[in-house]
Amino acid sequence: MSSPTSPILTLMIEAAEHSAQIIRKNFRHVSQIQNKTSHQDIVTNTDVQSQQVIHDHLLQGMKKLGYDEAIIGFVEEESTGDSVKTHTFIVDPLDGTTNFAAGIPFSGISIAYAEQKEIKLGVIFEPYSETLYWGEKGQGSYVKSELFGEHALLFSPKPMTSWLVAAHFNSSEIAQKQFSIYQKIYPHIRGLRNIGALVLDCGLLADGVLDAIFVHGCCLWDLAAAQVILPEAGYGLYTLQGEKLKLEWDNTKYKYEVMACSPNDLDQIMNILNT
Amino acid sequence: MSSPTSPILTLMIEAAEHSAQIIRKNFRHVSQIQNKTSHQDIVTNTDVQSQQVIHDHLLQGMKKLGYDEAIIGFVEEESTGDSVKTHTFIVDPLDGTTNFAAGIPFSGISIAYAEQKEIKLGVIFEPYSETLYWGEKGQGSYVKSELFGEHALLFSPKPMTSWLVAAHFNSSEIAQKQFSIYQKIYPHIRGLRNIGALVLDCGLLADGVLDAIFVHGCCLWDLAAAQVILPEAGYGLYTLQGEKLKLEWDNTKYKYEVMACSPNDLDQIMNILNT
Repeated sequence: MSSPTSPILTLMIEAAEHSAQIIRKNFRHVSQIQNKTSHQDIVTNTDVQSQQVIHDHLLQGMKKLGYDEAIIGFVEEESTGDSVKTHTFIVDPLDGTTNFAAGIPFSGISIAYAEQKEIKLGVIFEPYSETLYWGEKGQGSYVKSELFGEHALLFSPKPMTSWLVAAHFNSSEIAQKQFSIYQKIYPHIRGLRNIGALVLDCGLLADGVLDAIFVHGCCLWDLAAAQVILPEAGYGLYTLQGEKLKLEWDNTKYKYEVMACSPNDLDQIMNILNT
Repeated sequence: MSSPTSPILTLMIEAAEHSAQIIRKNFRHVSQIQNKTSHQDIVTNTDVQSQQVIHDHLLQGMKKLGYDEAIIGFVEEESTGDSVKTHTFIVDPLDGTTNFAAGIPFSGISIAYAEQKEIKLGVIFEPYSETLYWGEKGQGSYVKSELFGEHALLFSPKPMTSWLVAAHFNSSEIAQKQFSIYQKIYPHIRGLRNIGALVLDCGLLADGVLDAIFVHGCCLWDLAAAQVILPEAGYGLYTLQGEKLKLEWDNTKYKYEVMACSPNDLDQIMNILNT
Protein backbone atom coordinates (compact mmCIF):
# COMPACT_ATOMS: atom_id res chain seq x y z
CA MET A 1 0.00 0.00 0.00
CA SER A 2 1.32 3.39 -1.00
CA SER A 3 1.33 6.22 1.51
CA PRO A 4 1.06 9.89 0.54
CA THR A 5 4.55 10.98 -0.48
CA SER A 6 3.93 14.71 -0.74
CA PRO A 7 3.78 16.93 2.36
CA ILE A 8 1.07 19.00 0.63
CA LEU A 9 -1.04 15.85 0.20
CA THR A 10 -0.62 15.13 3.91
CA LEU A 11 -1.88 18.66 4.67
CA MET A 12 -4.90 18.12 2.42
CA ILE A 13 -5.79 14.83 4.12
CA GLU A 14 -5.49 16.45 7.56
CA ALA A 15 -7.72 19.34 6.42
CA ALA A 16 -10.36 16.87 5.16
CA GLU A 17 -10.24 14.98 8.46
CA HIS A 18 -10.78 18.21 10.43
CA SER A 19 -13.72 19.11 8.21
CA ALA A 20 -15.17 15.60 8.58
CA GLN A 21 -15.25 16.03 12.37
CA ILE A 22 -17.39 19.15 11.95
CA ILE A 23 -19.72 17.44 9.49
CA ARG A 24 -20.19 14.41 11.75
CA LYS A 25 -20.76 16.61 14.82
CA ASN A 26 -23.36 18.76 13.01
CA PHE A 27 -25.10 15.83 11.26
CA ARG A 28 -28.81 15.94 12.15
CA HIS A 29 -28.18 19.22 14.01
CA VAL A 30 -28.36 21.63 11.09
CA SER A 31 -29.23 25.08 12.32
CA GLN A 32 -29.47 27.13 9.11
CA ILE A 33 -30.39 26.18 5.55
CA GLN A 34 -30.44 28.89 2.88
CA ASN A 35 -31.40 28.74 -0.78
CA LYS A 36 -28.60 29.79 -3.16
CA THR A 37 -29.82 29.94 -6.77
CA SER A 38 -33.11 28.04 -6.19
CA HIS A 39 -34.90 25.65 -3.83
CA GLN A 40 -32.80 22.90 -5.45
CA ASP A 41 -29.47 24.53 -4.53
CA ILE A 42 -28.85 25.16 -0.83
CA VAL A 43 -26.11 25.98 1.66
CA THR A 44 -25.86 25.37 5.43
CA ASN A 45 -23.63 26.96 8.04
CA THR A 46 -21.74 23.64 8.16
CA ASP A 47 -20.59 24.15 4.54
CA VAL A 48 -19.15 27.50 5.61
CA GLN A 49 -17.53 26.18 8.80
CA SER A 50 -16.03 23.24 6.95
CA GLN A 51 -14.56 25.54 4.30
CA GLN A 52 -13.03 27.84 6.91
CA VAL A 53 -11.32 24.96 8.71
CA ILE A 54 -9.93 23.57 5.48
CA HIS A 55 -8.75 26.98 4.25
CA ASP A 56 -7.00 27.81 7.52
CA HIS A 57 -5.31 24.42 7.82
CA LEU A 58 -4.02 24.53 4.24
CA LEU A 59 -2.83 28.13 4.44
CA GLN A 60 -1.05 27.74 7.78
CA GLY A 61 0.42 24.40 6.68
CA MET A 62 1.77 25.82 3.42
CA LYS A 63 3.36 28.73 5.25
CA LYS A 64 5.03 26.28 7.65
CA LEU A 65 6.31 24.36 4.62
CA GLY A 66 7.97 27.62 3.53
CA TYR A 67 5.60 28.80 0.78
CA ASP A 68 5.01 32.55 0.45
CA GLU A 69 1.34 33.41 1.13
CA ALA A 70 1.34 35.69 -1.94
CA ILE A 71 1.58 32.71 -4.30
CA ILE A 72 -1.06 30.54 -2.57
CA GLY A 73 -4.54 30.75 -4.13
CA PHE A 74 -7.94 29.29 -3.31
CA VAL A 75 -11.02 28.45 -5.38
CA GLU A 76 -13.75 27.52 -2.91
CA GLU A 77 -17.43 26.74 -3.38
CA GLU A 78 -18.60 29.09 -0.63
CA SER A 79 -16.32 32.05 -1.48
CA THR A 80 -16.75 34.85 -3.96
CA GLY A 81 -13.12 35.94 -4.10
CA ASP A 82 -11.43 33.11 -5.99
CA SER A 83 -7.73 33.49 -6.70
CA VAL A 84 -5.78 31.20 -8.99
CA LYS A 85 -2.08 31.49 -8.20
CA THR A 86 1.11 29.45 -8.59
CA HIS A 87 -0.15 27.08 -5.87
CA THR A 88 -3.94 26.80 -5.84
CA PHE A 89 -6.28 24.74 -3.70
CA ILE A 90 -9.74 23.97 -5.07
CA VAL A 91 -12.16 23.10 -2.28
CA ASP A 92 -15.67 21.73 -2.05
CA PRO A 93 -16.14 21.72 1.72
CA LEU A 94 -19.41 19.72 1.75
CA ASP A 95 -20.65 18.16 -1.46
CA GLY A 96 -24.09 16.64 -0.92
CA THR A 97 -25.36 19.53 1.20
CA THR A 98 -28.94 18.45 0.51
CA ASN A 99 -28.21 14.98 1.91
CA PHE A 100 -26.54 16.54 4.92
CA ALA A 101 -29.42 18.95 5.54
CA ALA A 102 -32.02 16.19 5.17
CA GLY A 103 -30.14 13.69 7.35
CA ILE A 104 -28.79 11.22 4.76
CA PRO A 105 -25.26 10.17 5.82
CA PHE A 106 -23.65 10.42 2.40
CA SER A 107 -21.68 13.57 1.62
CA GLY A 108 -18.13 14.30 0.58
CA ILE A 109 -15.26 16.72 1.02
CA SER A 110 -13.12 17.41 -2.02
CA ILE A 111 -9.73 19.15 -2.00
CA ALA A 112 -7.43 19.47 -5.01
CA TYR A 113 -4.05 21.09 -5.41
CA ALA A 114 -2.92 22.64 -8.69
CA GLU A 115 0.54 23.87 -9.49
CA GLN A 116 0.59 26.37 -12.36
CA LYS A 117 -3.01 25.39 -13.23
CA GLU A 118 -2.15 21.71 -13.44
CA ILE A 119 -3.88 19.49 -10.89
CA LYS A 120 -1.27 17.39 -9.13
CA LEU A 121 -3.04 16.12 -5.98
CA GLY A 122 -6.62 15.21 -5.11
CA VAL A 123 -8.39 14.12 -1.93
CA ILE A 124 -12.04 13.04 -1.56
CA PHE A 125 -13.27 12.14 1.92
CA GLU A 126 -16.57 10.60 3.09
CA PRO A 127 -16.95 11.62 6.73
CA TYR A 128 -19.35 8.94 8.05
CA SER A 129 -17.52 5.77 7.01
CA GLU A 130 -14.23 7.70 6.99
CA THR A 131 -13.48 6.65 3.45
CA LEU A 132 -10.53 8.48 1.92
CA TYR A 133 -9.74 8.51 -1.80
CA TRP A 134 -6.56 10.18 -2.96
CA GLY A 135 -4.56 10.55 -6.11
CA GLU A 136 -1.12 11.89 -6.83
CA LYS A 137 -0.12 12.71 -10.39
CA GLY A 138 2.13 9.91 -11.64
CA GLN A 139 1.89 7.99 -8.35
CA GLY A 140 -1.55 6.37 -8.68
CA SER A 141 -4.83 6.57 -6.78
CA TYR A 142 -5.82 4.82 -3.58
CA VAL A 143 -8.74 4.29 -1.20
CA LYS A 144 -8.71 3.64 2.51
CA SER A 145 -11.88 3.04 4.51
CA GLU A 146 -12.99 2.07 7.99
CA LEU A 147 -15.47 -0.24 6.21
CA PHE A 148 -13.25 -2.22 3.88
CA GLY A 149 -9.55 -1.49 4.39
CA GLU A 150 -7.33 -0.04 1.70
CA HIS A 151 -6.22 -0.74 -1.85
CA ALA A 152 -4.92 0.87 -5.03
CA LEU A 153 -7.56 2.02 -7.52
CA LEU A 154 -7.31 0.60 -11.02
CA PHE A 155 -9.93 0.15 -13.76
CA SER A 156 -10.84 -3.37 -14.74
CA PRO A 157 -13.40 -4.03 -17.51
CA LYS A 158 -16.97 -5.17 -16.74
CA PRO A 159 -19.87 -6.07 -19.01
CA MET A 160 -22.30 -3.16 -19.35
CA THR A 161 -25.18 -5.33 -18.06
CA SER A 162 -23.56 -5.24 -14.61
CA TRP A 163 -22.94 -1.48 -14.56
CA LEU A 164 -24.21 1.04 -12.04
CA VAL A 165 -24.42 4.55 -13.45
CA ALA A 166 -24.63 7.74 -11.40
CA ALA A 167 -27.55 9.97 -12.34
CA HIS A 168 -27.84 13.60 -11.25
CA PHE A 169 -30.79 15.94 -11.45
CA ASN A 170 -29.37 19.41 -10.97
CA SER A 171 -32.13 21.87 -11.69
CA SER A 172 -35.54 21.91 -13.28
CA GLU A 173 -34.14 23.74 -16.32
CA ILE A 174 -31.82 20.91 -17.36
CA ALA A 175 -33.73 17.99 -15.87
CA GLN A 176 -35.41 17.06 -19.17
CA LYS A 177 -32.02 16.76 -20.87
CA GLN A 178 -30.84 14.55 -18.02
CA PHE A 179 -33.94 12.33 -18.06
CA SER A 180 -33.40 11.78 -21.77
CA ILE A 181 -29.85 10.47 -21.22
CA TYR A 182 -30.90 8.14 -18.41
CA GLN A 183 -33.79 6.77 -20.45
CA LYS A 184 -31.36 5.83 -23.23
CA ILE A 185 -28.75 4.24 -21.00
CA TYR A 186 -30.99 2.44 -18.49
CA PRO A 187 -31.97 -0.68 -20.50
CA HIS A 188 -28.30 -1.52 -21.08
CA ILE A 189 -27.14 -1.39 -17.46
CA ARG A 190 -27.96 -2.96 -14.10
CA GLY A 191 -29.06 0.22 -12.37
CA LEU A 192 -29.04 3.98 -11.97
CA ARG A 193 -28.03 5.54 -8.68
CA ASN A 194 -28.63 9.08 -7.55
CA ILE A 195 -27.01 9.17 -4.15
CA GLY A 196 -26.58 12.92 -4.10
CA ALA A 197 -22.87 13.72 -3.84
CA LEU A 198 -20.92 14.00 -7.09
CA VAL A 199 -17.48 13.93 -5.49
CA LEU A 200 -18.31 10.59 -3.84
CA ASP A 201 -19.65 9.28 -7.13
CA CYS A 202 -16.19 10.08 -8.53
CA GLY A 203 -14.56 8.13 -5.68
CA LEU A 204 -16.92 5.18 -6.27
CA LEU A 205 -16.17 5.32 -10.01
CA ALA A 206 -12.41 5.29 -9.39
CA ASP A 207 -13.00 2.23 -7.17
CA GLY A 208 -14.98 0.39 -9.89
CA VAL A 209 -18.18 0.47 -7.82
CA LEU A 210 -19.89 2.82 -10.24
CA ASP A 211 -19.09 2.52 -13.94
CA ALA A 212 -20.08 5.88 -15.40
CA ILE A 213 -21.29 9.29 -14.25
CA PHE A 214 -23.40 11.84 -16.08
CA VAL A 215 -23.79 15.30 -14.63
CA HIS A 216 -24.79 18.76 -15.84
CA GLY A 217 -24.10 22.09 -14.21
CA CYS A 218 -21.21 21.09 -12.00
CA CYS A 219 -18.30 23.32 -11.06
CA LEU A 220 -14.52 23.27 -10.83
CA TRP A 221 -14.66 22.35 -7.11
CA ASP A 222 -16.83 19.28 -7.90
CA LEU A 223 -14.32 18.00 -10.44
CA ALA A 224 -10.86 19.14 -9.43
CA ALA A 225 -9.84 16.28 -7.11
CA ALA A 226 -11.41 13.76 -9.49
CA GLN A 227 -9.31 15.27 -12.27
CA VAL A 228 -6.27 13.50 -10.81
CA ILE A 229 -7.86 10.58 -8.89
CA LEU A 230 -9.78 9.30 -11.93
CA PRO A 231 -7.01 9.39 -14.57
CA GLU A 232 -4.54 7.80 -12.16
CA ALA A 233 -7.12 4.98 -11.70
CA GLY A 234 -7.61 4.53 -15.45
CA TYR A 235 -10.74 6.66 -15.92
CA GLY A 236 -11.37 9.88 -17.79
CA LEU A 237 -13.53 13.00 -17.59
CA TYR A 238 -15.27 13.95 -20.84
CA THR A 239 -17.82 16.36 -22.23
CA LEU A 240 -21.20 14.85 -23.17
CA GLN A 241 -19.90 14.88 -26.75
CA GLY A 242 -17.12 12.51 -25.70
CA GLU A 243 -14.29 15.03 -25.83
CA LYS A 244 -11.68 15.22 -23.12
CA LEU A 245 -12.76 17.72 -20.45
CA LYS A 246 -10.75 20.94 -20.20
CA LEU A 247 -10.87 22.98 -17.02
CA GLU A 248 -11.70 26.67 -17.50
CA TRP A 249 -9.19 28.31 -15.20
CA ASP A 250 -10.11 31.79 -16.39
CA ASN A 251 -13.72 31.34 -15.29
CA THR A 252 -13.81 29.58 -11.95
CA LYS A 253 -17.65 29.67 -11.91
CA TYR A 254 -17.96 27.90 -15.28
CA LYS A 255 -20.67 25.18 -15.32
CA TYR A 256 -19.55 21.89 -16.84
CA GLU A 257 -21.51 19.09 -18.50
CA VAL A 258 -19.56 15.98 -17.72
CA MET A 259 -19.40 12.29 -18.43
CA ALA A 260 -16.90 10.21 -16.48
CA CYS A 261 -16.00 6.66 -17.44
CA SER A 262 -13.08 4.54 -18.58
CA PRO A 263 -11.68 5.45 -22.01
CA ASN A 264 -12.27 1.75 -22.84
CA ASP A 265 -16.03 2.29 -22.41
CA LEU A 266 -16.33 5.68 -24.09
CA ASP A 267 -17.28 4.41 -27.55
CA GLN A 268 -20.09 2.14 -26.43
CA ILE A 269 -21.55 4.93 -24.26
CA MET A 270 -21.37 7.45 -27.12
CA ASN A 271 -23.06 4.94 -29.43
CA ILE A 272 -26.00 4.68 -27.02
CA LEU A 273 -26.25 8.44 -26.47
CA ASN A 274 -26.19 9.06 -30.22
CA THR A 275 -29.00 6.63 -31.09
CA MET B 1 -37.45 6.51 24.55
CA SER B 2 -39.62 3.43 24.20
CA SER B 3 -38.05 -0.02 24.22
CA PRO B 4 -39.50 -3.02 22.39
CA THR B 5 -42.24 -4.44 24.62
CA SER B 6 -42.95 -7.63 22.68
CA PRO B 7 -40.67 -10.67 23.02
CA ILE B 8 -41.32 -11.42 19.35
CA LEU B 9 -40.02 -7.95 18.43
CA THR B 10 -36.90 -8.63 20.49
CA LEU B 11 -36.39 -11.86 18.50
CA MET B 12 -36.77 -9.97 15.22
CA ILE B 13 -34.21 -7.34 16.24
CA GLU B 14 -31.74 -10.05 17.28
CA ALA B 15 -32.26 -11.84 13.95
CA ALA B 16 -31.59 -8.59 12.05
CA GLU B 17 -28.42 -8.01 14.07
CA HIS B 18 -27.14 -11.53 13.29
CA SER B 19 -27.86 -10.99 9.61
CA ALA B 20 -26.12 -7.59 9.71
CA GLN B 21 -22.93 -9.24 10.96
CA ILE B 22 -22.91 -11.52 7.92
CA ILE B 23 -23.58 -8.63 5.54
CA ARG B 24 -20.79 -6.51 7.05
CA LYS B 25 -18.37 -9.45 7.02
CA ASN B 26 -19.13 -10.27 3.36
CA PHE B 27 -19.19 -6.63 2.16
CA ARG B 28 -16.70 -6.27 -0.69
CA HIS B 29 -16.06 -10.02 -0.55
CA VAL B 30 -18.98 -11.21 -2.68
CA SER B 31 -18.22 -14.63 -4.12
CA GLN B 32 -21.32 -15.35 -6.24
CA ILE B 33 -23.72 -13.08 -8.10
CA GLN B 34 -26.55 -14.64 -10.10
CA ASN B 35 -29.20 -13.07 -12.31
CA LYS B 36 -32.79 -13.82 -11.19
CA THR B 37 -35.34 -12.49 -13.68
CA SER B 38 -32.91 -10.26 -15.63
CA HIS B 39 -29.52 -8.49 -15.44
CA GLN B 40 -31.32 -5.85 -13.35
CA ASP B 41 -32.46 -8.35 -10.68
CA ILE B 42 -29.71 -10.30 -8.92
CA VAL B 43 -29.03 -12.46 -5.87
CA THR B 44 -25.81 -13.23 -4.00
CA ASN B 45 -24.94 -16.04 -1.62
CA THR B 46 -25.05 -13.45 1.17
CA ASP B 47 -28.80 -12.93 0.59
CA VAL B 48 -29.27 -16.66 1.09
CA GLN B 49 -27.01 -16.88 4.16
CA SER B 50 -28.70 -13.87 5.73
CA GLN B 51 -32.14 -15.37 5.17
CA GLN B 52 -31.11 -18.70 6.73
CA VAL B 53 -29.76 -17.02 9.86
CA ILE B 54 -32.92 -14.93 10.27
CA HIS B 55 -35.21 -17.90 9.63
CA ASP B 56 -33.43 -20.14 12.12
CA HIS B 57 -33.27 -17.48 14.83
CA LEU B 58 -36.96 -16.64 14.52
CA LEU B 59 -38.11 -20.26 14.38
CA GLN B 60 -36.00 -21.40 17.34
CA GLY B 61 -36.94 -18.30 19.31
CA MET B 62 -40.66 -18.76 18.70
CA LYS B 63 -40.44 -22.39 19.80
CA LYS B 64 -38.66 -21.29 22.98
CA LEU B 65 -41.46 -18.78 23.55
CA GLY B 66 -43.87 -21.75 23.43
CA TYR B 67 -45.35 -21.43 19.93
CA ASP B 68 -46.12 -24.63 18.03
CA GLU B 69 -43.99 -24.88 14.86
CA ALA B 70 -47.09 -25.93 12.87
CA ILE B 71 -48.60 -22.45 13.17
CA ILE B 72 -45.42 -20.49 12.34
CA GLY B 73 -45.17 -19.39 8.68
CA PHE B 74 -42.55 -17.65 6.57
CA VAL B 75 -42.70 -15.52 3.44
CA GLU B 76 -39.09 -14.92 2.38
CA GLU B 77 -37.60 -13.30 -0.68
CA GLU B 78 -35.17 -16.12 -1.42
CA SER B 79 -37.58 -19.04 -0.81
CA THR B 80 -40.09 -20.68 -3.08
CA GLY B 81 -42.16 -22.41 -0.39
CA ASP B 82 -43.98 -19.51 1.27
CA SER B 83 -46.43 -20.40 4.03
CA VAL B 84 -48.84 -17.91 5.58
CA LYS B 85 -49.97 -19.23 8.96
CA THR B 86 -51.39 -17.89 12.23
CA HIS B 87 -47.99 -16.37 13.01
CA THR B 88 -46.10 -15.31 9.88
CA PHE B 89 -42.72 -13.67 9.40
CA ILE B 90 -42.11 -11.78 6.18
CA VAL B 91 -38.40 -11.44 5.49
CA ASP B 92 -36.26 -9.50 3.04
CA PRO B 93 -32.80 -10.66 4.12
CA LEU B 94 -30.83 -8.16 2.00
CA ASP B 95 -32.67 -5.38 0.22
CA GLY B 96 -30.27 -3.46 -1.98
CA THR B 97 -28.46 -6.56 -3.24
CA THR B 98 -27.14 -4.59 -6.21
CA ASN B 99 -25.55 -2.03 -3.87
CA PHE B 100 -24.08 -4.84 -1.78
CA ALA B 101 -22.70 -6.65 -4.83
CA ALA B 102 -21.22 -3.44 -6.26
CA GLY B 103 -19.73 -2.28 -2.95
CA ILE B 104 -22.06 0.58 -1.97
CA PRO B 105 -22.60 0.45 1.81
CA PHE B 106 -26.34 1.03 1.75
CA SER B 107 -28.58 -2.01 2.11
CA GLY B 108 -31.30 -3.06 4.49
CA ILE B 109 -32.77 -6.04 6.29
CA SER B 110 -36.55 -6.09 6.71
CA ILE B 111 -38.49 -8.40 9.02
CA ALA B 112 -42.22 -8.16 9.70
CA TYR B 113 -44.49 -10.22 11.91
CA ALA B 114 -48.16 -10.76 11.06
CA GLU B 115 -50.75 -12.36 13.30
CA GLN B 116 -53.73 -13.69 11.37
CA LYS B 117 -52.56 -11.77 8.28
CA GLU B 118 -52.39 -8.48 10.16
CA ILE B 119 -48.93 -6.93 10.44
CA LYS B 120 -48.20 -6.15 14.06
CA LEU B 121 -44.42 -5.69 14.21
CA GLY B 122 -41.80 -4.38 11.80
CA VAL B 123 -38.01 -4.09 11.89
CA ILE B 124 -35.75 -2.46 9.29
CA PHE B 125 -32.00 -2.55 9.88
CA GLU B 126 -29.13 -0.84 8.06
CA PRO B 127 -26.04 -2.93 8.80
CA TYR B 128 -23.22 -0.42 8.17
CA SER B 129 -24.32 2.48 10.40
CA GLU B 130 -26.28 0.01 12.56
CA THR B 131 -29.44 2.02 12.17
CA LEU B 132 -32.54 0.23 13.49
CA TYR B 133 -36.10 1.29 12.68
CA TRP B 134 -38.93 -0.53 14.38
CA GLY B 135 -42.67 -0.22 14.76
CA GLU B 136 -45.18 -1.92 16.97
CA LYS B 137 -48.88 -1.68 16.14
CA GLY B 138 -50.44 0.83 18.54
CA GLN B 139 -47.10 1.55 20.25
CA GLY B 140 -45.42 3.87 17.74
CA SER B 141 -42.28 3.72 15.61
CA TYR B 142 -38.71 4.47 16.59
CA VAL B 143 -35.21 4.75 15.22
CA LYS B 144 -31.87 4.10 16.91
CA SER B 145 -28.55 4.65 15.18
CA GLU B 146 -24.84 4.59 15.90
CA LEU B 147 -24.72 7.82 13.87
CA PHE B 148 -27.36 9.98 15.55
CA GLY B 149 -28.81 8.35 18.65
CA GLU B 150 -32.47 7.46 19.05
CA HIS B 151 -35.90 9.07 18.83
CA ALA B 152 -39.56 8.39 18.16
CA LEU B 153 -40.68 8.72 14.52
CA LEU B 154 -43.49 11.16 13.83
CA PHE B 155 -44.51 13.04 10.68
CA SER B 156 -44.18 16.80 10.73
CA PRO B 157 -45.23 18.89 7.69
CA LYS B 158 -42.65 20.41 5.31
CA PRO B 159 -43.02 22.61 2.23
CA MET B 160 -42.77 20.57 -0.96
CA THR B 161 -39.85 22.73 -2.19
CA SER B 162 -37.69 21.14 0.52
CA TRP B 163 -38.71 17.55 -0.20
CA LEU B 164 -36.47 14.66 -1.17
CA VAL B 165 -38.32 11.95 -3.09
CA ALA B 166 -37.13 8.38 -3.54
CA ALA B 167 -37.02 7.26 -7.16
CA HIS B 168 -36.69 3.63 -8.22
CA PHE B 169 -35.96 2.14 -11.61
CA ASN B 170 -36.95 -1.49 -11.40
CA SER B 171 -36.78 -2.94 -14.88
CA SER B 172 -36.53 -1.72 -18.43
CA GLU B 173 -40.20 -2.65 -19.03
CA ILE B 174 -41.57 -0.20 -16.50
CA ALA B 175 -38.78 2.38 -16.55
CA GLN B 176 -40.64 4.71 -18.97
CA LYS B 177 -43.62 4.86 -16.61
CA GLN B 178 -41.28 5.67 -13.74
CA PHE B 179 -39.38 8.36 -15.67
CA SER B 180 -42.71 10.01 -16.46
CA ILE B 181 -43.63 10.27 -12.76
CA TYR B 182 -40.25 11.68 -11.77
CA GLN B 183 -40.34 14.23 -14.60
CA LYS B 184 -43.67 15.52 -13.28
CA ILE B 185 -42.67 15.69 -9.64
CA TYR B 186 -39.09 16.96 -9.97
CA PRO B 187 -39.69 20.70 -10.54
CA HIS B 188 -41.74 20.90 -7.33
CA ILE B 189 -39.22 19.32 -4.98
CA ARG B 190 -35.62 19.80 -3.82
CA GLY B 191 -34.30 16.53 -5.16
CA LEU B 192 -34.74 12.94 -6.29
CA ARG B 193 -32.72 10.18 -4.67
CA ASN B 194 -32.21 6.67 -5.94
CA ILE B 195 -30.07 5.08 -3.27
CA GLY B 196 -31.04 1.55 -4.14
CA ALA B 197 -32.72 -0.05 -1.11
CA LEU B 198 -36.48 0.39 -0.80
CA VAL B 199 -36.73 -0.80 2.78
CA LEU B 200 -34.24 1.86 3.85
CA ASP B 201 -36.15 4.46 1.86
CA CYS B 202 -39.14 3.49 4.01
CA GLY B 203 -37.09 3.98 7.17
CA LEU B 204 -35.85 7.37 5.93
CA LEU B 205 -39.43 8.35 5.06
CA ALA B 206 -40.67 7.39 8.53
CA ASP B 207 -37.86 9.56 9.92
CA GLY B 208 -38.86 12.59 7.81
CA VAL B 209 -35.58 12.47 5.84
CA LEU B 210 -37.34 11.50 2.62
CA ASP B 211 -40.82 12.86 1.96
CA ALA B 212 -42.32 10.48 -0.59
CA ILE B 213 -41.46 7.22 -2.33
CA PHE B 214 -42.56 5.94 -5.72
CA VAL B 215 -41.87 2.35 -6.66
CA HIS B 216 -43.14 -0.21 -9.17
CA GLY B 217 -42.78 -3.96 -9.06
CA CYS B 218 -42.03 -4.39 -5.38
CA CYS B 219 -43.06 -7.38 -3.29
CA LEU B 220 -44.63 -8.19 0.06
CA TRP B 221 -41.20 -8.56 1.71
CA ASP B 222 -40.20 -5.06 0.58
CA LEU B 223 -43.29 -3.53 2.17
CA ALA B 224 -44.31 -5.64 5.14
CA ALA B 225 -42.22 -4.01 7.90
CA ALA B 226 -43.00 -0.57 6.47
CA GLN B 227 -46.68 -1.46 6.67
CA VAL B 228 -46.48 -0.97 10.44
CA ILE B 229 -43.49 1.40 10.82
CA LEU B 230 -44.92 4.00 8.42
CA PRO B 231 -48.51 4.23 9.74
CA GLU B 232 -47.27 4.37 13.33
CA ALA B 233 -45.10 7.34 12.26
CA GLY B 234 -47.98 9.11 10.53
CA TYR B 235 -47.34 7.99 6.95
CA GLY B 236 -49.32 5.78 4.57
CA LEU B 237 -48.76 3.32 1.74
CA TYR B 238 -50.92 3.91 -1.34
CA THR B 239 -51.40 2.71 -4.88
CA LEU B 240 -50.32 5.10 -7.62
CA GLN B 241 -54.00 6.02 -7.91
CA GLY B 242 -53.92 7.26 -4.32
CA GLU B 243 -55.89 4.40 -2.79
CA LYS B 244 -54.81 2.77 0.44
CA LEU B 245 -52.55 -0.20 -0.30
CA LYS B 246 -53.97 -3.66 0.44
CA LEU B 247 -51.60 -6.60 0.86
CA GLU B 248 -52.38 -9.64 -1.29
CA TRP B 249 -51.93 -12.46 1.21
CA ASP B 250 -53.25 -15.05 -1.22
CA ASN B 251 -50.50 -14.26 -3.72
CA THR B 252 -47.23 -13.75 -1.90
CA LYS B 253 -45.42 -13.06 -5.21
CA TYR B 254 -47.78 -10.22 -6.19
CA LYS B 255 -45.98 -7.15 -7.61
CA TYR B 256 -47.11 -3.85 -6.13
CA GLU B 257 -47.04 -0.30 -7.51
CA VAL B 258 -46.65 1.88 -4.48
CA MET B 259 -46.55 5.49 -3.37
CA ALA B 260 -45.65 6.19 0.24
CA CYS B 261 -46.15 9.60 1.84
CA SER B 262 -48.06 11.31 4.61
CA PRO B 263 -51.85 11.35 4.17
CA ASN B 264 -51.52 15.15 4.59
CA ASP B 265 -49.49 15.30 1.37
CA LEU B 266 -51.49 12.81 -0.70
CA ASP B 267 -53.74 15.34 -2.42
CA GLN B 268 -50.98 17.63 -3.64
CA ILE B 269 -49.01 14.65 -4.97
CA MET B 270 -52.05 13.27 -6.79
CA ASN B 271 -52.71 16.71 -8.30
CA ILE B 272 -49.20 16.75 -9.77
CA LEU B 273 -49.40 13.16 -11.04
CA ASN B 274 -52.75 13.84 -12.68
CA THR B 275 -51.66 16.94 -14.59
